[in-house]
Amino acid sequence: MMSKIIDGKMVSKEIKEELKEKVSKLKNKPTLVVISVGDNEASKVYVGQKEKCANYIGINYQHLHFDKIEDDKLIKEIDKLNKDNSVNGIIVQLPLPKGMNETKIVNSIVKEKDVDGLTYYNAGLLLNKEKCLVSCTPKGIMELFKRYHVELKGRHVVVIGRSILVGKPMMNLLINADATVTLCHSKTENLEKITKKADILVVAIGKKHFITRDMVRRGSVIIDVGINRCDGKLYGDVDYDNVYDKVKLITPVPGGVGPMTVVMLMQNVIESYEMMHNGK
Amino acid sequence: MMSKIIDGKMVSKEIKEELKEKVSKLKNKPTLVVISVGDNEASKVYVGQKEKCANYIGINYQHLHFDKIEDDKLIKEIDKLNKDNSVNGIIVQLPLPKGMNETKIVNSIVKEKDVDGLTYYNAGLLLNKEKCLVSCTPKGIMELFKRYHVELKGRHVVVIGRSILVGKPMMNLLINADATVTLCHSKTENLEKITKKADILVVAIGKKHFITRDMVRRGSVIIDVGINRCDGKLYGDVDYDNVYDKVKLITPVPGGVGPMTVVMLMQNVIESYEMMHNGK
Repeated sequence: MMSKIIDGKMVSKEIKEELKEKVSKLKNKPTLVVISVGDNEASKVYVGQKEKCANYIGINYQHLHFDKIEDDKLIKEIDKLNKDNSVNGIIVQLPLPKGMNETKIVNSIVKEKDVDGLTYYNAGLLLNKEKCLVSCTPKGIMELFKRYHVELKGRHVVVIGRSILVGKPMMNLLINADATVTLCHSKTENLEKITKKADILVVAIGKKHFITRDMVRRGSVIIDVGINRCDGKLYGDVDYDNVYDKVKLITPVPGGVGPMTVVMLMQNVIESYEMMHNGK
Repeated sequence: MMSKIIDGKMVSKEIKEELKEKVSKLKNKPTLVVISVGDNEASKVYVGQKEKCANYIGINYQHLHFDKIEDDKLIKEIDKLNKDNSVNGIIVQLPLPKGMNETKIVNSIVKEKDVDGLTYYNAGLLLNKEKCLVSCTPKGIMELFKRYHVELKGRHVVVIGRSILVGKPMMNLLINADATVTLCHSKTENLEKITKKADILVVAIGKKHFITRDMVRRGSVIIDVGINRCDGKLYGDVDYDNVYDKVKLITPVPGGVGPMTVVMLMQNVIESYEMMHNGK
């Protein structure tokens, strides 16, 4: 029997090699600047992963760290990077320390360098099905659908979670791919009735094993975006062990959606580089 | 028995009076500029409706008409209006003549004067649940929900149609109001199974009597955005006569959603005026 596992770890390695090959042929190295403020522990881990991945692929990685900085000064720093032709991608590592205006700061990044796809303008472009930089996690999920030949056109996809980083861009990517999409969230009533109808279920709600066996449709495809830490172990939003034999395809946690995100960030940096150099 | 009809004609009249009252108390008259190009017959009708409504409410109405104009020149005209402090709202009457770049032209309007809510930036703001100018038809539908006390939180709303003017902003407004939303469209499979589950059904597909009695849920609320002309008469997307006794509330065509749209445009002009003058 074929494996049911959508192996994001393996796919992300394949893509990393493809991107490395691609970068080696470019005239200059693309440059990514990561901005962080304060000392969030989780952020340090994520920033480290980005650096490692950028180095592997051959992307020039710069880290701008501030222990403390005022909003206006940070926006001025971003503006310098916006105008610097040698910079292709800018990300602000979230969350910022309390009291800082994340929305205003993120939206000060020009759309062409917004490799996290978080600015209003990029969100609007995506909604309008225009070429744009797309948020990395949903972009990674779309890539998994492609590589595992999951047909989206006409299928009913249920997305749980309406965050700006995952749920909402996921919804728009799926609609653009001709899927029928239902967006559920914490206020949804009778969730089980809805999830049981899903051909494809994308869960990004951040609750350990929230989706149980009786909530999924037999033969469906399950994408688990959750990363819940508990007693030093990682758990998804889906009760994987009990759901596994009922479904057609499923992403494990860890090793499913997670590894795709960083690689998609690098792909965005390269796309941004190409747009700047080819006027595409 | 209470009437099941959502009387958009009546509600729009009420709002018109409210807006007239509001404008009478403002220091200056808010100004709306409508730009049209070419000689689209339907556009002439719509432009006329806007002028009439603006005049009634006391909004200063200006019509800039070009028989023919190049994209760049039109964008320069828009830019003049963007910078003119006496102008509060700018709309470009669509469709523009073939060959003109509607997207580029519409997006040259500054977000503060984009009273049709059509720019990418405003779409992104709406997606992020930020204060913004919202597309008039879905804004009008939200107003109808409010005035008819239709609870949205937790309810399952099915929207048919994914246009930039109606379906997509409708979806985002409903999600922001804590509804669970399914977006369906021409590629949706088993549409009937989905519409039958809807607590509220919003139809904007542009096909006469596309929604039949067996497709709606008993006791549901039906919003019909369709305006289909046939033999000189107007028909909705819903087979009203046969659906009527099965549902709780329903908008007629004409006299339902239609009359709300122009009034919501005027409300947007006033909101834009207030934002400019109060820095809200």
